[in-house]
Amino acid sequence: MSTIGVTAPQGFSAAAAKAGIKPSGKTDLAVVVNDGPDSAAAAVFTRNKVFAAPVKVSRAAVAAGQLRAIVFNSGNANACTGEQGLQDAQTMQRLTAEGIGAEPAQVAVCSTGIIGDQLPMQKVAGGIADVVQCLGDHGADAASAIMTTDTIAKEVLVKGDGWTLGGMGKGAGMMAPSLATMLVCLTTDAKVDSNALQTALERATATTFDTLDIDGSTSTNDTVIAMASGASGVSPEQEELDAAVREACAELAAMMQSDAEGVTKRVTITVEGAVDNMQALNAARTIGRDNLVKTAMFGSDPNWGRVLAAVGMADAEMDAEDISVTFNGQTVCEHSTGAPGAREVDLSGADIDVVVDLGTGGAGRAMVRTTDLSHSYVEINSAYTS
Amino acid sequence: MSTIGVTAPQGFSAAAAKAGIKPSGKTDLAVVVNDGPDSAAAAVFTRNKVFAAPVKVSRAAVAAGQLRAIVFNSGNANACTGEQGLQDAQTMQRLTAEGIGAEPAQVAVCSTGIIGDQLPMQKVAGGIADVVQCLGDHGADAASAIMTTDTIAKEVLVKGDGWTLGGMGKGAGMMAPSLATMLVCLTTDAKVDSNALQTALERATATTFDTLDIDGSTSTNDTVIAMASGASGVSPEQEELDAAVREACAELAAMMQSDAEGVTKRVTITVEGAVDNMQALNAARTIGRDNLVKTAMFGSDPNWGRVLAAVGMADAEMDAEDISVTFNGQTVCEHSTGAPGAREVDLSGADIDVVVDLGTGGAGRAMVRTTDLSHSYVEINSAYTS
Repeated sequence: MSTIGVTAPQGFSAAAAKAGIKPSGKTDLAVVVNDGPDSAAAAVFTRNKVFAAPVKVSRAAVAAGQLRAIVFNSGNANACTGEQGLQDAQTMQRLTAEGIGAEPAQVAVCSTGIIGDQLPMQKVAGGIADVVQCLGDHGADAASAIMTTDTIAKEVLVKGDGWTLGGMGKGAGMMAPSLATMLVCLTTDAKVDSNALQTALERATATTFDTLDIDGSTSTNDTVIAMASGASGVSPEQEELDAAVREACAELAAMMQSDAEGVTKRVTITVEGAVDNMQALNAARTIGRDNLVKTAMFGSDPNWGRVLAAVGMADAEMDAEDISVTFNGQTVCEHSTGAPGAREVDLSGADIDVVVDLGTGGAGRAMVRTTDLSHSYVEINSAYTS
Repeated sequence: MSTIGVTAPQGFSAAAAKAGIKPSGKTDLAVVVNDGPDSAAAAVFTRNKVFAAPVKVSRAAVAAGQLRAIVFNSGNANACTGEQGLQDAQTMQRLTAEGIGAEPAQVAVCSTGIIGDQLPMQKVAGGIADVVQCLGDHGADAASAIMTTDTIAKEVLVKGDGWTLGGMGKGAGMMAPSLATMLVCLTTDAKVDSNALQTALERATATTFDTLDIDGSTSTNDTVIAMASGASGVSPEQEELDAAVREACAELAAMMQSDAEGVTKRVTITVEGAVDNMQALNAARTIGRDNLVKTAMFGSDPNWGRVLAAVGMADAEMDAEDISVTFNGQTVCEHSTGAPGAREVDLSGADIDVVVDLGTGGAGRAMVRTTDLSHSYVEINSAYTS
């Protein structure tokens, strides 16, 4: 049995195939099967009003609370593809169900790749026919098959008391959403119901994937989906489940941040002294999305004035004359004015911690993870489909 | 008399000096004086909660409704400079008032340049002493002195029926707010009171500067300020005044868009079919700020899927299955799916028009002007203060 990934927990099998969707000829189709005995499931989907056909299909499947399998393809997001796209997602669902002997409603569908092209269904169907023939302990193959612009496959394993939680993910926090949706699949052999799993997933994503904000964009296909087989026979308490799911999501989120295209710096923005956590999060996001802050980070420039100019536009209460800022623990701004030596702070390393206190005296606090804005980002994202 | 700029209307004088604030040694201090007989004034300021000392001083001056002069400096924004910064802005106000024989409360102050450094007040004071000695028909010199990252001075003239409206501006729509606040000064010899001028200014900025959105950032110092001398003796109707102020602001906004640093494309985003104009504006802004849309434009890539992914996150009602998009008049997306030939649309020119219909059937419509996101943007903004 695998030591990491979606087939590490008991009761799961997976496989991948080269369906020919990706021009590169690499693996581009995968199935992860929950072999039971249970088939509890939970998921969190993109909040984008423009969502892809597979999201629509998977939402309905997960809403019923039971999943036997998830079929994934990379190279094509099946997004903005109209009625034909919906039929194609349903065909993927049906073919996978037939291949493993399940009902179509028990199969979720995840697609990632270019937006706006119809799926090459003959290739997809061939890939599904292949993959269901070789299901086994192949979580690593599945993790590779869902990669698009990722440079490394992303797998995790968290051990509980007598049960385990595995996972795989792909994506770069929407650095290139035409080809790089965020997809995550978690598997566990814990004996938990769909409600407990959904609760754990929502709690975990709120502080992990939801605070990974590379460029403020949100994909049409973002999906985080979890299946529980119950094969360990162990039923953890909600807190134990929450902790494991949070750890797995945090590890995958960190991998995505590091692998985001064009990244030369990992930047953490913490906002403190806000009226409440929500306002702190608003302020942290506003700073983390500001292109002038992000280009300064790329240049290793301790330009704290840009942080103040950015936070001043946030939907958050602040004492505009009592904001303080630290870069990597060194105070660069106090009472909204520069601190001695602020321009000399060394930001040449790969990690930059920015802490901003809004000066309200409140206990509100939040953190977002982002990256710098580099030449590579512009290069990669300007030269994609052309 | 000048044929363009702030000293083209009757009743205004201006001058500029090399105070030594800019390391380059170029002119960096200017005064524009309203020689009357009237001294009506109006202004619109940044909405940033973190605003600079000169904004605080000018707000109070304009609130009283009468301005005799405006003093400008470039090279230093006097922002995030605390109590010392406020004293320095007041000193600039007082020295200018003394120099022209006015009350300090009748002088506004505009600063632009790096955030967070204290003003070199000895140099500033010397510059003001010089400039008040050589006031005259020097609007062009003033327009040059307020430039920071601008590559061309920006002046306008609009002719009314027996009266004129002149203006100057600087800035690049916040492309580099550490050094590139947007400042605009309008002058008119029309006989209008402060309320009429304020009304015209607010109406004009709503559809011009407020829809120029280069990177979603808003400076600590943005100021649009107008003075009326009444020297023509002509009192235009509100509509005539509105039209002239709007024309002047539109011309200056277009110059700023073209001169924004790192720009290779001028992009206009129009949203139609929204429930109301405000939702249309929200949607247009969301698209115009999306880095993935902006990098696609830089790459001349007709990647309409990114437009749909962006607009789906906007705070606006839409029919997510009936969105249509045109690029330069060619339909690339209908009913939220790709139109034939969409990937072959030629976007290689310098101007790109994007029109998005949200499909609600509503009459809401809005437009924003933005630019592409280029290598030069990253270069300029990552290498500034370092």
